[in-house]
Amino acid sequence: MKIEPVTAKPDKEELNGRLEKIRTLMDKEKLDYYVSFSPTNVYYLTNFANLVHERPFILVIGKKGPMKMVCPLLESTHVQNRARCDLEYVIYYEFPAPEGQNWYDVYRPLFKDSDRVGHETAMPAGILKETRGTKVMTNIIEEVRVIKTDYEIGRHVHACQVVDEGMKKLLETTRAGVPLITIYSGLVQAMMAKALFEVADLNLIASKFQGAVWPPSISHDPHIIPTPFMIMEEGGPSCSIVGAIVDGYGVEIERTLFLEYIPEHARKLFDTMMKARERAYNLAQPGMVLEEIDRQVRQVFIDAGYEKNIIHRTGHGFGITGHEDPFLALGDKRKLAPGMIISIEPGIYFKGKGGYRHSDTVLITENGNLKLTHAPDQMEELLFRK
Amino acid sequence: MKIEPVTAKPDKEELNGRLEKIRTLMDKEKLDYYVSFSPTNVYYLTNFANLVHERPFILVIGKKGPMKMVCPLLESTHVQNRARCDLEYVIYYEFPAPEGQNWYDVYRPLFKDSDRVGHETAMPAGILKETRGTKVMTNIIEEVRVIKTDYEIGRHVHACQVVDEGMKKLLETTRAGVPLITIYSGLVQAMMAKALFEVADLNLIASKFQGAVWPPSISHDPHIIPTPFMIMEEGGPSCSIVGAIVDGYGVEIERTLFLEYIPEHARKLFDTMMKARERAYNLAQPGMVLEEIDRQVRQVFIDAGYEKNIIHRTGHGFGITGHEDPFLALGDKRKLAPGMIISIEPGIYFKGKGGYRHSDTVLITENGNLKLTHAPDQMEELLFRK
Repeated sequence: MKIEPVTAKPDKEELNGRLEKIRTLMDKEKLDYYVSFSPTNVYYLTNFANLVHERPFILVIGKKGPMKMVCPLLESTHVQNRARCDLEYVIYYEFPAPEGQNWYDVYRPLFKDSDRVGHETAMPAGILKETRGTKVMTNIIEEVRVIKTDYEIGRHVHACQVVDEGMKKLLETTRAGVPLITIYSGLVQAMMAKALFEVADLNLIASKFQGAVWPPSISHDPHIIPTPFMIMEEGGPSCSIVGAIVDGYGVEIERTLFLEYIPEHARKLFDTMMKARERAYNLAQPGMVLEEIDRQVRQVFIDAGYEKNIIHRTGHGFGITGHEDPFLALGDKRKLAPGMIISIEPGIYFKGKGGYRHSDTVLITENGNLKLTHAPDQMEELLFRK
Repeated sequence: MKIEPVTAKPDKEELNGRLEKIRTLMDKEKLDYYVSFSPTNVYYLTNFANLVHERPFILVIGKKGPMKMVCPLLESTHVQNRARCDLEYVIYYEFPAPEGQNWYDVYRPLFKDSDRVGHETAMPAGILKETRGTKVMTNIIEEVRVIKTDYEIGRHVHACQVVDEGMKKLLETTRAGVPLITIYSGLVQAMMAKALFEVADLNLIASKFQGAVWPPSISHDPHIIPTPFMIMEEGGPSCSIVGAIVDGYGVEIERTLFLEYIPEHARKLFDTMMKARERAYNLAQPGMVLEEIDRQVRQVFIDAGYEKNIIHRTGHGFGITGHEDPFLALGDKRKLAPGMIISIEPGIYFKGKGGYRHSDTVLITENGNLKLTHAPDQMEELLFRK
């Protein structure tokens, strides 16, 4: 397992390796074809990122030979320009189009009625309807995506350097009285500049840079979105998030922080969060069942009397997106394995008093785990005065 | 029809009016329920914008009473905070979740097996599978979205002022020798600042600001994405795009421009594009069949000998997104009607020589059309020297 930053685009060998894994699973499920519409799955297999709009792009994977890409005429050179694998193009004119020239007119003949055709749970009903054969819903691409290749690990290592830079900027600029938009602009610019200079031909369609701080008055509510002119408040806890997708590889780092002073009641709650976090790192070993980790981490909060304050799972996977399989959550019975990249982010939330959560992007290695993001995590290091 | 900029969030009456139109169509199709997963349709009916991830949000519309929103616990206050209509919440714990507490456990009981349930063509197969009853694929929300209310027109008028500002910045900064990223940063910042200051609590999840210039070496290829450090080239034509979604309302403006000088061969081609554009504006009247407009506009290019250089339709609709129904395209047999907002953007493209296309956001009025975006459109006005 190589743990070094990579910024180059994937080569044909890398993409062929991914395709071969898909075909192994297709074989297991006796599929003649697999069709993919999900732009993240298409990116994973081709390095082509599309902006989803009314003109469909559909990847059709047969048992052998190059994959077929059904795409509009207007976009065919865009695909050719970005794809890093062999593709056979099945081109339609426009959406909509005169009779006989629509996307489904070129798509339907790719299958026989006797074929077994696999597809994603995310497949739109309208495309499924035009897919001939016996349809089998099975997320095999997502399954393959869960375990990263050395190349992917390298891309994530690099993406983590980008969010580290964003978090550094966030911690430098978050001070009592500052409006969120100032912090946001600074960190987005810092990450974008780093990504632009380090990744040749950065694909902006496959990139996203974001971050925010939840002041203590709303930090109990991690999925509410703070408004742009919200003012940073004294005391704490504030919850902060920095996330990025860098040329198609997503990661995050999050810190709970304090401004001007640390409220007395915050100490015990912060410590409890840190204890749960430590438990999670200790448990994040290859072979551990994912829901078992979540259960044991929750127990730390439950033992401290905060069962009602747990409102989310311990973590989620990263890959082409910043939020995907697998999940450190009750109900996910899979096992951790080397090459998985996950967040570790147990949290507790108190209405009117705020939330406590750090998150890092963590690689599962042969014999444990390795944090790929870096920022201070101790309470005293996370107190900032004007 | 009021044509004045609006920046306020929609009120309950506006959203109820939209819902009533959906229910009229449900009634026509004898549907007991309509389910929507598409984040743009959900935004249209609720004013809540979600970032699609593995935790599903599903809107369930019955024949009467408030709509139901199936959503994760973690997000319920986020929805409450943004939605501007009455909603009944159907909350599940997490994704995944322990047995019996998953999203489908709360979703399935919302229907009876005897119900007729309408859904979008975009509905994911995995959600469709958990939807009970007789399923009917019908895009009734998209159908209602095609005709804008006065409120929506006002939001689009405002969004057009934002892209006008972006285009102004683009035309000021696009000069021979300048890298694209400089132009991009300037126009994105200009639009974002305007939107942030004019729309209270701008929802960044429902906002997007973008723009680019295709130098003449690639301007024949409108959907290739120029790379960030591409250098602006002398001569022309360069094709430029400025697009924005401002708090959930999408529009665009595009101009063909020249740097330092106008190549002799460009004059006739630019004029032909302008002629096709004029034809489109003349034809864009209520009652005109959409494909008929496209056919007659194409004829301008065909008559000039450029049939092979037409690679896209004459235009598309705007609404919650920057690209949606209806389409000024062969195959769209609907009629133009007052309250539609469309792009008019006939173009021709010559490999190695570049592309010619202006686009504006245009409102169909009771007796014609009204351009909502504003920028110079004459060749001599679009020549910029250092």
